[in-house]
Amino acid sequence: MSKDFGVREGEIAVDLPAKTDAGLYYIGRIRTPWKQRKDCPKNARESDAVCTVELDERWAAGLKEVATCSHLVLLYWMHQTQRDLVLQVPGHYGVQRGTFALRSPARPNPIAMSVVKLLGIEGGKLSVVGLDCLDGTPLLDIKPYFASTDSVPEALVGWHSQKK
Amino acid sequence: MSKDFGVREGEIAVDLPAKTDAGLYYIGRIRTPWKQRKDCPKNARESDAVCTVELDERWAAGLKEVATCSHLVLLYWMHQTQRDLVLQVPGHYGVQRGTFALRSPARPNPIAMSVVKLLGIEGGKLSVVGLDCLDGTPLLDIKPYFASTDSVPEALVGWHSQKK
Repeated sequence: MSKDFGVREGEIAVDLPAKTDAGLYYIGRIRTPWKQRKDCPKNARESDAVCTVELDERWAAGLKEVATCSHLVLLYWMHQTQRDLVLQVPGHYGVQRGTFALRSPARPNPIAMSVVKLLGIEGGKLSVVGLDCLDGTPLLDIKPYFASTDSVPEALVGWHSQKK
Repeated sequence: MSKDFGVREGEIAVDLPAKTDAGLYYIGRIRTPWKQRKDCPKNARESDAVCTVELDERWAAGLKEVATCSHLVLLYWMHQTQRDLVLQVPGHYGVQRGTFALRSPARPNPIAMSVVKLLGIEGGKLSVVGLDCLDGTPLLDIKPYFASTDSVPEALVGWHSQKK
Protein backbone atom coordinates (compact mmCIF):
# COMPACT_ATOMS: atom_id res chain seq x y z
CA MET A 1 0.00 0.00 0.00
CA SER A 2 1.35 3.40 -0.98
CA LYS A 3 1.57 6.21 1.55
CA ASP A 4 -0.94 8.22 -0.52
CA PHE A 5 -3.72 5.83 0.53
CA GLY A 6 -4.27 5.87 4.29
CA VAL A 7 -7.38 5.34 6.44
CA ARG A 8 -9.15 8.63 7.24
CA GLU A 9 -11.30 9.36 10.30
CA GLY A 10 -14.67 7.69 9.84
CA GLU A 11 -13.30 5.03 7.52
CA ILE A 12 -13.78 1.39 8.46
CA ALA A 13 -11.60 -1.52 7.36
CA VAL A 14 -12.39 -5.23 7.64
CA ASP A 15 -10.11 -8.26 7.84
CA LEU A 16 -9.36 -9.52 4.35
CA PRO A 17 -9.97 -13.20 3.58
CA ALA A 18 -6.97 -15.45 4.20
CA LYS A 19 -6.50 -16.15 0.50
CA THR A 20 -7.62 -15.04 -2.93
CA ASP A 21 -10.02 -17.08 -5.07
CA ALA A 22 -8.85 -16.42 -8.62
CA GLY A 23 -5.88 -14.95 -10.47
CA LEU A 24 -5.52 -12.12 -12.96
CA TYR A 25 -3.09 -11.62 -15.82
CA TYR A 26 -1.88 -8.13 -16.61
CA ILE A 27 -2.38 -7.98 -20.39
CA GLY A 28 -0.76 -4.59 -20.98
CA ARG A 29 -0.17 -1.14 -19.53
CA ILE A 30 -1.96 2.19 -19.73
CA ARG A 31 0.17 5.25 -20.52
CA THR A 32 -1.21 8.53 -19.20
CA PRO A 33 0.26 11.98 -18.41
CA TRP A 34 -0.30 11.47 -14.65
CA LYS A 35 2.60 10.18 -12.53
CA GLN A 36 1.08 10.73 -9.05
CA ARG A 37 -2.42 10.31 -7.71
CA LYS A 38 -2.77 14.03 -6.92
CA ASP A 39 -2.21 14.86 -10.61
CA CYS A 40 -5.01 12.60 -11.89
CA PRO A 41 -8.26 14.28 -12.95
CA LYS A 42 -11.06 13.65 -10.40
CA ASN A 43 -13.39 12.65 -13.17
CA ALA A 44 -12.41 11.17 -16.52
CA ARG A 45 -14.69 13.58 -18.38
CA GLU A 46 -12.71 16.49 -16.93
CA SER A 47 -9.80 15.62 -19.19
CA ASP A 48 -9.46 15.36 -22.94
CA ALA A 49 -5.93 13.99 -22.65
CA VAL A 50 -5.14 11.31 -25.21
CA CYS A 51 -3.88 8.19 -23.41
CA THR A 52 -2.31 5.06 -24.87
CA VAL A 53 -3.28 1.50 -24.10
CA GLU A 54 -0.33 -0.80 -24.78
CA LEU A 55 -1.54 -4.36 -25.23
CA ASP A 56 1.06 -7.11 -24.78
CA GLU A 57 2.15 -8.81 -28.02
CA ARG A 58 0.75 -12.14 -26.78
CA TRP A 59 -2.81 -10.82 -27.02
CA ALA A 60 -2.51 -8.53 -30.05
CA ALA A 61 -4.50 -10.79 -32.41
CA GLY A 62 -7.49 -10.22 -30.13
CA LEU A 63 -7.83 -6.68 -31.51
CA LYS A 64 -9.36 -7.87 -34.80
CA GLU A 65 -12.44 -5.69 -35.51
CA VAL A 66 -11.93 -3.55 -32.40
CA ALA A 67 -11.25 -0.58 -34.70
CA THR A 68 -14.93 -0.70 -35.75
CA CYS A 69 -15.94 0.36 -32.20
CA SER A 70 -16.44 4.04 -31.42
CA HIS A 71 -16.18 3.42 -27.65
CA LEU A 72 -14.66 0.75 -25.44
CA VAL A 73 -14.92 -0.42 -21.85
CA LEU A 74 -11.50 -0.71 -20.25
CA LEU A 75 -10.92 -2.67 -17.07
CA TYR A 76 -7.68 -2.02 -15.22
CA TRP A 77 -6.07 -2.76 -11.88
CA MET A 78 -5.62 -0.03 -9.29
CA HIS A 79 -2.50 -1.69 -7.94
CA GLN A 80 -1.53 0.99 -5.44
CA THR A 81 -4.69 0.96 -3.37
CA GLN A 82 -5.88 -0.79 -0.21
CA ARG A 83 -8.56 -3.46 -0.37
CA ASP A 84 -10.07 -3.68 3.11
CA LEU A 85 -12.18 -0.49 3.37
CA VAL A 86 -15.97 -0.90 3.56
CA LEU A 87 -16.80 2.66 4.65
CA GLN A 88 -14.92 5.60 3.19
CA VAL A 89 -14.82 9.36 3.53
CA PRO A 90 -13.65 10.71 0.18
CA GLY A 91 -11.65 13.91 0.68
CA HIS A 92 -13.63 15.98 -1.81
CA TYR A 93 -17.01 15.10 -0.22
CA GLY A 94 -16.15 14.63 3.47
CA VAL A 95 -19.11 12.29 4.08
CA GLN A 96 -18.98 8.60 5.05
CA ARG A 97 -20.30 6.29 2.33
CA GLY A 98 -20.13 2.60 1.52
CA THR A 99 -17.37 1.41 -0.79
CA PHE A 100 -19.97 0.05 -3.22
CA ALA A 101 -21.65 3.47 -3.47
CA LEU A 102 -18.35 5.00 -4.58
CA ARG A 103 -16.02 4.72 -7.57
CA SER A 104 -13.00 5.04 -5.25
CA PRO A 105 -10.06 2.81 -6.25
CA ALA A 106 -10.06 1.38 -2.69
CA ARG A 107 -12.32 -1.72 -2.83
CA PRO A 108 -11.98 -5.47 -2.25
CA ASN A 109 -11.14 -6.04 -5.92
CA PRO A 110 -9.62 -2.79 -7.16
CA ILE A 111 -10.80 -3.19 -10.74
CA ALA A 112 -11.57 0.16 -12.35
CA MET A 113 -14.01 0.45 -15.24
CA SER A 114 -13.80 3.33 -17.69
CA VAL A 115 -15.74 4.04 -20.87
CA VAL A 116 -13.35 5.55 -23.41
CA LYS A 117 -13.59 6.97 -26.89
CA LEU A 118 -11.37 5.11 -29.35
CA LEU A 119 -9.32 7.40 -31.60
CA GLY A 120 -7.24 4.79 -33.38
CA ILE A 121 -5.18 1.59 -33.22
CA GLU A 122 -1.64 1.13 -34.44
CA GLY A 123 -0.12 -2.31 -33.87
CA GLY A 124 -0.92 -3.20 -30.27
CA LYS A 125 -1.41 0.43 -29.20
CA LEU A 126 -4.80 2.05 -28.82
CA SER A 127 -5.22 5.83 -28.57
CA VAL A 128 -8.16 6.70 -26.34
CA VAL A 129 -9.79 9.61 -24.51
CA GLY A 130 -11.61 9.29 -21.18
CA LEU A 131 -9.10 7.95 -18.65
CA ASP A 132 -8.03 9.36 -15.30
CA CYS A 133 -5.58 6.72 -14.02
CA LEU A 134 -1.90 6.74 -13.17
CA ASP A 135 0.73 6.18 -15.84
CA GLY A 136 1.74 2.51 -15.92
CA THR A 137 -1.59 1.15 -14.64
CA PRO A 138 -1.95 -2.57 -15.48
CA LEU A 139 -4.59 -3.37 -18.10
CA LEU A 140 -7.02 -6.25 -17.48
CA ASP A 141 -9.54 -6.18 -20.33
CA ILE A 142 -10.85 -4.36 -23.39
CA LYS A 143 -14.52 -4.76 -24.33
CA PRO A 144 -16.73 -3.23 -27.03
CA TYR A 145 -19.23 -0.72 -25.59
CA PHE A 146 -22.78 -1.52 -26.66
CA ALA A 147 -25.17 1.40 -26.20
CA SER A 148 -28.07 -1.09 -26.18
CA THR A 149 -26.96 -2.66 -22.88
CA ASP A 150 -24.39 -0.26 -21.41
CA SER A 151 -25.95 3.18 -21.87
CA VAL A 152 -28.56 4.37 -19.35
CA PRO A 153 -28.80 8.16 -19.77
CA GLU A 154 -31.51 8.49 -17.10
CA ALA A 155 -29.55 6.67 -14.36
CA LEU A 156 -29.25 8.53 -11.07
CA VAL A 157 -26.90 8.31 -8.12
CA GLY A 158 -29.08 9.79 -5.42
CA TRP A 159 -26.39 10.77 -2.94
CA HIS A 160 -24.52 12.57 -5.70
CA SER A 161 -27.54 14.50 -7.00
CA GLN A 162 -28.48 15.61 -3.46
CA LYS A 163 -25.09 17.14 -2.80
CA LYS A 164 -25.53 19.66 -5.64
CA MET B 1 -12.75 -25.75 -18.27
CA SER B 2 -16.26 -27.04 -18.74
CA LYS B 3 -17.19 -29.19 -21.73
CA ASP B 4 -19.57 -26.46 -22.91
CA PHE B 5 -16.62 -24.22 -23.84
CA GLY B 6 -14.45 -25.82 -26.54
CA VAL B 7 -12.34 -24.33 -29.36
CA ARG B 8 -14.32 -24.02 -32.64
CA GLU B 9 -12.88 -24.07 -36.17
CA GLY B 10 -11.28 -20.70 -36.86
CA GLU B 11 -10.61 -20.02 -33.19
CA ILE B 12 -7.04 -19.33 -32.12
CA ALA B 13 -5.61 -19.90 -28.63
CA VAL B 14 -2.29 -18.59 -27.26
CA ASP B 15 -0.04 -19.92 -24.49
CA LEU B 16 -1.09 -18.38 -21.20
CA PRO B 17 1.57 -16.66 -19.07
CA ALA B 18 3.30 -18.95 -16.58
CA LYS B 19 1.74 -17.19 -13.60
CA THR B 20 -0.91 -14.69 -12.64
CA ASP B 21 -0.07 -11.15 -11.54
CA ALA B 22 -2.77 -10.34 -8.97
CA GLY B 23 -5.45 -12.09 -6.95
CA LEU B 24 -9.21 -11.66 -6.68
CA TYR B 25 -11.58 -12.21 -3.78
CA TYR B 26 -15.05 -13.54 -4.47
CA ILE B 27 -17.20 -11.15 -2.44
CA GLY B 28 -20.54 -12.87 -2.98
CA ARG B 29 -22.62 -14.89 -5.43
CA ILE B 30 -25.20 -14.02 -8.09
CA ARG B 31 -28.44 -16.00 -8.05
CA THR B 32 -30.20 -16.30 -11.41
CA PRO B 33 -32.78 -18.67 -12.92
CA TRP B 34 -30.18 -20.13 -15.34
CA LYS B 35 -28.38 -23.34 -14.38
CA GLN B 36 -26.67 -24.07 -17.72
CA ARG B 37 -25.04 -21.85 -20.32
CA LYS B 38 -27.60 -22.79 -22.99
CA ASP B 39 -30.41 -21.45 -20.79
CA CYS B 40 -28.86 -17.99 -20.33
CA PRO B 41 -30.34 -15.14 -22.38
CA LYS B 42 -27.99 -14.10 -25.22
CA ASN B 43 -28.36 -10.48 -24.24
CA ALA B 44 -29.16 -9.17 -20.79
CA ARG B 45 -31.84 -6.82 -22.16
CA GLU B 46 -33.71 -9.85 -23.53
CA SER B 47 -34.67 -10.80 -20.01
CA ASP B 48 -36.62 -9.03 -17.30
CA ALA B 49 -35.86 -11.78 -14.77
CA VAL B 50 -35.22 -10.47 -11.28
CA CYS B 51 -31.87 -11.78 -10.05
CA THR B 52 -30.36 -11.61 -6.57
CA VAL B 53 -26.87 -10.46 -5.70
CA GLU B 54 -25.82 -12.02 -2.38
CA LEU B 55 -22.99 -10.01 -0.86
CA ASP B 56 -20.90 -11.77 1.79
CA GLU B 57 -21.48 -10.56 5.35
CA ARG B 58 -17.86 -9.37 5.59
CA TRP B 59 -18.53 -6.62 3.02
CA ALA B 60 -22.14 -5.74 3.88
CA ALA B 61 -21.30 -2.37 5.50
CA GLY B 62 -20.05 -1.28 2.08
CA LEU B 63 -23.66 -1.01 0.87
CA LYS B 64 -24.29 2.26 2.74
CA GLU B 65 -26.00 4.68 0.30
CA VAL B 66 -26.09 2.13 -2.54
CA ALA B 67 -29.90 2.16 -2.30
CA THR B 68 -29.85 5.74 -3.61
CA CYS B 69 -28.57 4.45 -6.99
CA SER B 70 -31.05 3.65 -9.76
CA HIS B 71 -28.49 1.56 -11.67
CA LEU B 72 -25.31 -0.29 -10.78
CA VAL B 73 -22.31 -1.75 -12.57
CA LEU B 74 -21.69 -5.34 -11.52
CA LEU B 75 -18.41 -7.10 -12.16
CA TYR B 76 -18.38 -10.88 -11.87
CA TRP B 77 -16.16 -13.82 -12.71
CA MET B 78 -17.01 -16.17 -15.55
CA HIS B 79 -15.38 -19.07 -13.77
CA GLN B 80 -16.33 -21.78 -16.25
CA THR B 81 -14.67 -20.32 -19.31
CA GLN B 82 -11.29 -20.67 -21.02
CA ARG B 83 -8.79 -17.82 -20.98
CA ASP B 84 -6.44 -18.41 -23.92
CA LEU B 85 -8.59 -17.50 -26.97
CA VAL B 86 -7.56 -14.43 -29.00
CA LEU B 87 -9.74 -15.10 -32.05
CA GLN B 88 -13.24 -16.50 -31.65
CA VAL B 89 -16.15 -17.58 -33.83
CA PRO B 90 -19.29 -17.02 -31.78
CA GLY B 91 -21.90 -19.61 -32.71
CA HIS B 92 -24.70 -17.12 -33.34
CA TYR B 93 -22.59 -15.02 -35.75
CA GLY B 94 -20.26 -17.60 -37.35
CA VAL B 95 -17.58 -14.97 -38.13
CA GLN B 96 -14.04 -14.81 -36.70
CA ARG B 97 -13.49 -11.79 -34.49
CA GLY B 98 -10.94 -10.70 -31.90
CA THR B 99 -11.67 -11.47 -28.27
CA PHE B 100 -11.53 -7.74 -27.45
CA ALA B 101 -14.22 -6.95 -30.05
CA LEU B 102 -16.58 -9.40 -28.31
CA ARG B 103 -18.37 -9.63 -24.98
CA SER B 104 -17.80 -13.41 -24.93
CA PRO B 105 -16.97 -14.79 -21.47
CA ALA B 106 -13.81 -16.38 -22.95
CA ARG B 107 -11.03 -13.79 -22.46
CA PRO B 108 -7.68 -13.57 -20.63
CA ASN B 109 -9.40 -12.18 -17.54
CA PRO B 110 -12.98 -13.45 -17.64
CA ILE B 111 -14.48 -10.47 -15.81
CA ALA B 112 -17.99 -9.71 -17.03
CA MET B 113 -19.47 -6.23 -16.71
CA SER B 114 -23.22 -5.70 -16.59
CA VAL B 115 -25.27 -2.58 -16.04
CA VAL B 116 -28.28 -3.49 -13.91
CA LYS B 117 -31.36 -1.73 -12.60
CA LEU B 118 -31.54 -1.83 -8.80
CA LEU B 119 -34.99 -2.79 -7.47
CA GLY B 120 -34.16 -2.97 -3.77
CA ILE B 121 -31.78 -4.04 -1.02
CA GLU B 122 -32.61 -6.19 1.98
CA GLY B 123 -29.72 -6.99 4.30
CA GLY B 124 -26.85 -8.06 2.07
CA LYS B 125 -29.13 -9.04 -0.83
CA LEU B 126 -29.73 -6.81 -3.84
CA SER B 127 -32.61 -7.42 -6.27
CA VAL B 128 -31.63 -6.40 -9.78
CA VAL B 129 -32.74 -6.69 -13.41
CA GLY B 130 -30.36 -6.93 -16.37
CA LEU B 131 -28.21 -10.03 -15.85
CA ASP B 132 -27.65 -13.00 -18.14
CA CYS B 133 -25.16 -15.11 -16.16
CA LEU B 134 -25.26 -18.58 -14.65
CA ASP B 135 -26.68 -19.17 -11.18
CA GLY B 136 -23.89 -19.15 -8.61
CA THR B 137 -21.56 -16.83 -10.55
CA PRO B 138 -18.94 -15.29 -8.22
CA LEU B 139 -19.36 -11.55 -7.60
CA LEU B 140 -16.30 -9.28 -7.81
CA ASP B 141 -17.57 -5.71 -7.44
CA ILE B 142 -20.56 -3.40 -7.20
CA LYS B 143 -20.21 0.19 -8.46
CA PRO B 144 -22.63 3.11 -8.79
CA TYR B 145 -23.51 3.83 -12.44
CA PHE B 146 -22.90 7.46 -13.32
CA ALA B 147 -24.68 8.55 -16.50
CA SER B 148 -22.19 11.42 -16.79
CA THR B 149 -19.24 9.10 -17.42
CA ASP B 150 -20.76 5.69 -18.20
CA SER B 151 -23.59 6.49 -20.63
CA VAL B 152 -22.76 7.01 -24.32
CA PRO B 153 -26.05 6.61 -26.23
CA GLU B 154 -24.42 7.30 -29.61
CA ALA B 155 -21.70 4.64 -29.27
CA LEU B 156 -21.41 2.23 -32.19
CA VAL B 157 -19.95 -1.24 -32.62
CA GLY B 158 -19.32 -1.22 -36.37
CA TRP B 159 -19.16 -4.97 -36.95
CA HIS B 160 -22.46 -5.40 -35.13
CA SER B 161 -24.31 -2.65 -37.01
CA GLN B 162 -23.10 -4.03 -40.36
CA LYS B 163 -24.47 -7.48 -39.69
CA LYS B 164 -28.02 -6.20 -39.46
